Amino acid sequence: MAENSVLVLNGPNLNMLGKREPSIYGATTLADVEAMCRDVGRDLNLDVDCRQSNHEGYLIDWCHEAREAFDGIVINAGGFTHTSVALRDALSASEVPIIEVHISNIHAREAFRHTSMIAPVAVGMICGLGPIGYRLALEAMAEILEG
Amino acid sequence: MAENSVLVLNGPNLNMLGKREPSIYGATTLADVEAMCRDVGRDLNLDVDCRQSNHEGYLIDWCHEAREAFDGIVINAGGFTHTSVALRDALSASEVPIIEVHISNIHAREAFRHTSMIAPVAVGMICGLGPIGYRLALEAMAEILEG
Amino acid sequence: MAENSVLVLNGPNLNMLGKREPSIYGATTLADVEAMCRDVGRDLNLDVDCRQSNHEGYLIDWCHEAREAFDGIVINAGGFTHTSVALRDALSASEVPIIEVHISNIHAREAFRHTSMIAPVAVGMICGLGPIGYRLALEAMAEILEG
Amino acid sequence: MAENSVLVLNGPNLNMLGKREPSIYGATTLADVEAMCRDVGRDLNLDVDCRQSNHEGYLIDWCHEAREAFDGIVINAGGFTHTSVALRDALSASEVPIIEVHISNIHAREAFRHTSMIAPVAVGMICGLGPIGYRLALEAMAEILEG
Amino acid sequence: MAENSVLVLNGPNLNMLGKREPSIYGATTLADVEAMCRDVGRDLNLDVDCRQSNHEGYLIDWCHEAREAFDGIVINAGGFTHTSVALRDALSASEVPIIEVHISNIHAREAFRHTSMIAPVAVGMICGLGPIGYRLALEAMAEILEG
Amino acid sequence: MAENSVLVLNGPNLNMLGKREPSIYGATTLADVEAMCRDVGRDLNLDVDCRQSNHEGYLIDWCHEAREAFDGIVINAGGFTHTSVALRDALSASEVPIIEVHISNIHAREAFRHTSMIAPVAVGMICGLGPIGYRLALEAMAEILEG
Amino acid sequence: MAENSVLVLNGPNLNMLGKREPSIYGATTLADVEAMCRDVGRDLNLDVDCRQSNHEGYLIDWCHEAREAFDGIVINAGGFTHTSVALRDALSASEVPIIEVHISNIHAREAFRHTSMIAPVAVGMICGLGPIGYRLALEAMAEILEG
Amino acid sequence: MAENSVLVLNGPNLNMLGKREPSIYGATTLADVEAMCRDVGRDLNLDVDCRQSNHEGYLIDWCHEAREAFDGIVINAGGFTHTSVALRDALSASEVPIIEVHISNIHAREAFRHTSMIAPVAVGMICGLGPIGYRLALEAMAEILEG
Amino acid sequence: MAENSVLVLNGPNLNMLGKREPSIYGATTLADVEAMCRDVGRDLNLDVDCRQSNHEGYLIDWCHEAREAFDGIVINAGGFTHTSVALRDALSASEVPIIEVHISNIHAREAFRHTSMIAPVAVGMICGLGPIGYRLALEAMAEILEG
Amino acid sequence: MAENSVLVLNGPNLNMLGKREPSIYGATTLADVEAMCRDVGRDLNLDVDCRQSNHEGYLIDWCHEAREAFDGIVINAGGFTHTSVALRDALSASEVPIIEVHISNIHAREAFRHTSMIAPVAVGMICGLGPIGYRLALEAMAEILEG
Amino acid sequence: MAENSVLVLNGPNLNMLGKREPSIYGATTLADVEAMCRDVGRDLNLDVDCRQSNHEGYLIDWCHEAREAFDGIVINAGGFTHTSVALRDALSASEVPIIEVHISNIHAREAFRHTSMIAPVAVGMICGLGPIGYRLALEAMAEILEG
Amino acid sequence: MAENSVLVLNGPNLNMLGKREPSIYGATTLADVEAMCRDVGRDLNLDVDCRQSNHEGYLIDWCHEAREAFDGIVINAGGFTHTSVALRDALSASEVPIIEVHISNIHAREAFRHTSMIAPVAVGMICGLGPIGYRLALEAMAEILEG
Repeated sequence: MAENSVLVLNGPNLNMLGKREPSIYGATTLADVEAMCRDVGRDLNLDVDCRQSNHEGYLIDWCHEAREAFDGIVINAGGFTHTSVALRDALSASEVPIIEVHISNIHAREAFRHTSMIAPVAVGMICGLGPIGYRLALEAMAEILEG
Repeated sequence: MAENSVLVLNGPNLNMLGKREPSIYGATTLADVEAMCRDVGRDLNLDVDCRQSNHEGYLIDWCHEAREAFDGIVINAGGFTHTSVALRDALSASEVPIIEVHISNIHAREAFRHTSMIAPVAVGMICGLGPIGYRLALEAMAEILEG
Repeated sequence: MAENSVLVLNGPNLNMLGKREPSIYGATTLADVEAMCRDVGRDLNLDVDCRQSNHEGYLIDWCHEAREAFDGIVINAGGFTHTSVALRDALSASEVPIIEVHISNIHAREAFRHTSMIAPVAVGMICGLGPIGYRLALEAMAEILEG
Repeated sequence: MAENSVLVLNGPNLNMLGKREPSIYGATTLADVEAMCRDVGRDLNLDVDCRQSNHEGYLIDWCHEAREAFDGIVINAGGFTHTSVALRDALSASEVPIIEVHISNIHAREAFRHTSMIAPVAVGMICGLGPIGYRLALEAMAEILEG
Repeated sequence: MAENSVLVLNGPNLNMLGKREPSIYGATTLADVEAMCRDVGRDLNLDVDCRQSNHEGYLIDWCHEAREAFDGIVINAGGFTHTSVALRDALSASEVPIIEVHISNIHAREAFRHTSMIAPVAVGMICGLGPIGYRLALEAMAEILEG
Repeated sequence: MAENSVLVLNGPNLNMLGKREPSIYGATTLADVEAMCRDVGRDLNLDVDCRQSNHEGYLIDWCHEAREAFDGIVINAGGFTHTSVALRDALSASEVPIIEVHISNIHAREAFRHTSMIAPVAVGMICGLGPIGYRLALEAMAEILEG
Repeated sequence: MAENSVLVLNGPNLNMLGKREPSIYGATTLADVEAMCRDVGRDLNLDVDCRQSNHEGYLIDWCHEAREAFDGIVINAGGFTHTSVALRDALSASEVPIIEVHISNIHAREAFRHTSMIAPVAVGMICGLGPIGYRLALEAMAEILEG
Repeated sequence: MAENSVLVLNGPNLNMLGKREPSIYGATTLADVEAMCRDVGRDLNLDVDCRQSNHEGYLIDWCHEAREAFDGIVINAGGFTHTSVALRDALSASEVPIIEVHISNIHAREAFRHTSMIAPVAVGMICGLGPIGYRLALEAMAEILEG
Repeated sequence: MAENSVLVLNGPNLNMLGKREPSIYGATTLADVEAMCRDVGRDLNLDVDCRQSNHEGYLIDWCHEAREAFDGIVINAGGFTHTSVALRDALSASEVPIIEVHISNIHAREAFRHTSMIAPVAVGMICGLGPIGYRLALEAMAEILEG
Repeated sequence: MAENSVLVLNGPNLNMLGKREPSIYGATTLADVEAMCRDVGRDLNLDVDCRQSNHEGYLIDWCHEAREAFDGIVINAGGFTHTSVALRDALSASEVPIIEVHISNIHAREAFRHTSMIAPVAVGMICGLGPIGYRLALEAMAEILEG
Repeated sequence: MAENSVLVLNGPNLNMLGKREPSIYGATTLADVEAMCRDVGRDLNLDVDCRQSNHEGYLIDWCHEAREAFDGIVINAGGFTHTSVALRDALSASEVPIIEVHISNIHAREAFRHTSMIAPVAVGMICGLGPIGYRLALEAMAEILEG
Repeated sequence: MAENSVLVLNGPNLNMLGKREPSIYGATTLADVEAMCRDVGRDLNLDVDCRQSNHEGYLIDWCHEAREAFDGIVINAGGFTHTSVALRDALSASEVPIIEVHISNIHAREAFRHTSMIAPVAVGMICGLGPIGYRLALEAMAEILEG
């Protein structure tokens, strides 16, 4: 079967992973997470492309690009999760399956983190399971793409 | 009479016009809309400059530029409409008349689209009339500027 | 092409146009607006019938009449905009396209004017552009009816 | 036993029954419903008088009349159900038992239809059962009046 | 000094005064109240015209009439007090001083009666003092008009 | 025509009917209600099976059973009406028509009784009409099942 | 007939009357108001005792005293109106009729002034009519006490 | 390494899986899910025990049992997710790591399904990924238990 | 004087007392509490019967039993306190005096624990005083029953 | 063991106990309550000092004094319970254990009495049990202070 | 230049500064703060008068005094900040510039501390900077008064 | 003592300072403010680096940079203050002390400006004092950094 491609997007502050608030986010760095995603992708026959930006605009641009160039999106939108209608619309416009990931359990933190603007346009969400969440999301994506 | 200049701003995801969710937004592309705006401008003796960005920061920069360089702004701020205090402040700082346009009827969609942060600093709003909305906004702007 | 007919409805207090609070509503009278609508209609090949009432019941009756006798409705429901489920249901029952007009920018006034009960059953809304709004609504209606 | 008289009131837009949104309200017309009510009344030894208005004022006047002239009211207040304090007060002023009917299931529609201003001054409510609801309401009214 | 004229408006259900819920509204009839208002008017050198309607539309019409024909309005808008934006706008459009009267203490009843749409466009409000409230309102109006 | 079968479910505290708060619920016992339901069923050619439980779990089990074994459900879910998502989902999973009954007028009692979790998955609701409500619900059910 | 006694209480900041924000509260001083109250009392055969405090505790003490020593209370509780459960309870404990007065129209000012903690335990309220309000309150009190 | 044991709990209506609303929940039955969980457990060196109940009480009992007998809980609490404080407290009392699973994307359904009472006492949540979610939860649990 | 009997009910998770979250609930077990209740009962001439269940249905059944068999109820409804309309109705149906006990201070914990559905049908509540609360509740109950 | 000292504070309107609204608060006077508290204190080896004020300021001063001079506070803050952040802070600043008492069941009265600003800084609350509540609070305090 | 005078007001519980909750408020006492304010005043050519009260009434009295006797007010209103309309009105009545100070960061504490009733009538606010906040406020006041 | 370095960040629209709405923001330009900050820094032995952007992404990047390169942040986040979770997280990730500055009194403007997403992760806030606020913030920062 032809290989599917997946875009793994990380939003604002995720470049600080492993540095910022390790009691919440753990010690794994973004580079570790992205390497793991590519490894997992190889096992799952997925071509994984990882990108991170603190700029909402680039995340939106990449969602638009995904429309033509990718078969699915795994996204941890960081703080934009709770506020960005624009990113939600961009994800929706991609018309590919989307899985939302959060390293921490957003439902156990401040009230403003309990709401995700993105969740209603995603297939599903994985949260609170640490960096493993990305791997699980890719596993689920692989099954979804294989139908 | 000397020609007035109008800045037509399109915000996030409007570059996807004609591609994204045609049942909501129709088949007209942004290029079509911008061409129509320039045509209409010619008829109305308005110098129309069209710009689009998925980056809130550029939209803010352009509003600041409008303060010196344009006589009015027609804006479809996309998803920023409902969330951006910063863009509202930038529009307000432009101190030119502003008309807000939405292609779809934002009052008939999800509840979070019913509120516009921008509307209170605009002269008025046109929504739900499709790409025609831009033409009508330019007509109204022409009359306001001729005042 | 056969002429389309449009019902232009004005709700409570719009008979006071040009007299009441000119700083908000301007100096144009309802007679002026209705004459303009008929003129614009002639240019657009629309047969325009203008009516006004301070009685919710008559506005409802006229919406029912529109079902058989008109191809579209342009309505400024005045204060009923924010409160009348009955008028909303009547508009919906007309099963013709509806465009909502407001002379002032309802989003920039008291909070109770920010919500329109009518908007979700209309094609779109034009607000804040003064009496020009009626002309623009008729232009849009002409295009909608011509399909 | 002397015959009891019941006023069957239908509010705004119910004159459109059978025409408006048949997927929600069915194909039975108001004339059908009123004929059925009179038939059912005959079987139940009730003198049934049916009236409809799109004018809140007439509905209020009729409630006042009911105080002297009727033993009970069956009312489908249409859109006024959710908004009219004045009609609620008029029903309350009638001092006869009131049963509220709705053809559609108001609890399964838009949120603003979930609240009835009238329910707290009525004996009870029947909703969602289509035109049968009127018949059931008259049956219940007959038993209430027979005490 | 030339005589001032005052329009005393009573809204829905106030024609039932003295009949409806006497424990809340007392035994005085509307005819009694209107006679008292005219008597008080005579003492205060005010020409008092009393009108009542259960139709929002007539109350609105009369407010418009007041603009030319009266120097002040005393209004008990009954149930419209809490719901009618249209009546509020009509009172505002009259551009004469307005005093709001309620026979019962609206702040001690159901929550939906605690809010008055009319109060913000009135000079003041008198409530809970029974029919005396009308007399006190006319006394205050006399002083305001002599102001 | 073959006989249809209807499951009449009563939820928590309805076994106390006729004992508990007779001013609200009347003197009829649950046994009386169930006997009446079976009698009415006989007249309507419905096979009526009546069950009551104070355990949400049994009510859910019975809804599942209804999927195979019954053609319709009449339910008075008592206090679970306002709180149970699980029972709502069970009713929905039954995929048979459901009519909700309440002996008292839930809209005229405490605010937490104004909301029904069940209503949106039911065909309709009858409330406030006392034990008669069950009979009326069965009549309506008979007509619905006969199509 | 024996003379009735009325306690006129003024709460916080009313000692500043005539000095503070004259555009809202006018130029009449508290001494003027109290003198007027005593004069009006004389005309109405009421023994009027006027007191003012910026201390909630003294206002509460005086309400307790009123229980034995006064036949009615006229109170302008100033800012305590909107916040003081303790004063409400003290007024309630006085078990004499209470009329609430406000010089300005509290319903036309900031939202937090729209709610009165005191109103539900008062007979009625007069607001927005300036210092005249006290005189009208005494007139109404005289009639209430004469019963 | 010694085998860890995991309790897989399914709440109300999950026994209907594969029968109820397949467009939302898919065609896999609970038996399928439980078989898969046991298979996955074997691969992950986890002793998996699967239980389902429509009775909140049994789910609570089983959480208490888990305290002594299991190393982790994977739970899909169905409708209890959104309402049950008691189940939340039972899960919390188990003092083992908990992962919450939902077959459908609860954030994309009715508003009352957006809130989970359980999430704040769980390590994390997986939703919207269908039956795969259970497998992913067991994978994550295995890693958590291995530390 | 004849002995009074009191039913001491403990709801979900209270069987875990002394095991679960000792920092909140202390080290006393349910057996200790029940033994203390029986001892205290002996001193107060009360026949004390203690029961616990994690099943709402049994708690409801026991409240119904209390109607005939007990003179008062002391209840710690655990998590059902905040959610169960059904249990509230059952307590109300018992028609005996009820005292609510909570071991922890529910007002100092999560917001959803601040509301008690049960409190409005109880005589009073004791919370935050640990297991002593049961003893104090029995003392109060003894005085209430002795009248 | 050395004697512990407890400050029993009563807030606004509690000096009216036995006079004010006996149907809610009973016939016992404050003097009776304070005498009982001192008696109970003697039995429990507690030195009890009782004070009452209608002035929030004195209650705050006494809380500050308690910091040095008392081992615990029993407080019925009356109406300040629901509104006073300042008293809450003063109680918190005392750094001694606090038990809150209410004579009536605050949860069964007006909604604004359901919230206690003080509860979160207290050990616990006793309400609805009448004057007995003070005795029970002292019993609990004795045990808390004895540790 | 003539010396300006500034009133430094401290509200309830600030006399406990340095004693109460030092983790939040630090170890500096009120005497230290007031000495520092007088020192700073000397440097800034401001005559600084420091007062503290736990009585809202005295704070109000002092604001009234400020109207004549001071050129500015620096106030830390403690718990009254969040609740006192009366103090807000008194500050407003002073008609001098006001700067609000809080030692702790009120925005990072309980939700009820996030709202300041006083802020809208002040020039500005300084919070969270500890006792330094008073010095900074005096510096700003000096510049404001020098204009 | 070694010099500390402080990053002074200005968010969207602050480049318009001195041009935009001078009635709210004054005539000082951003260049003036930044020059003043550097001057003040020199006096306080702080190395001050000033940056401004209308792009949220750059502000986030700079916060990350601050983690390694600066000892403190003074930030006026403009419109992002009220909306940006991402910027809040970036500030929090910097792990240096943060002081928030606003030129205008955000508490006296539109309601949406009353909430700061940033305040809870800052040491404190200074608002409403104009450009002086930056100087005061640097003074406070100097003391905080010197400990």
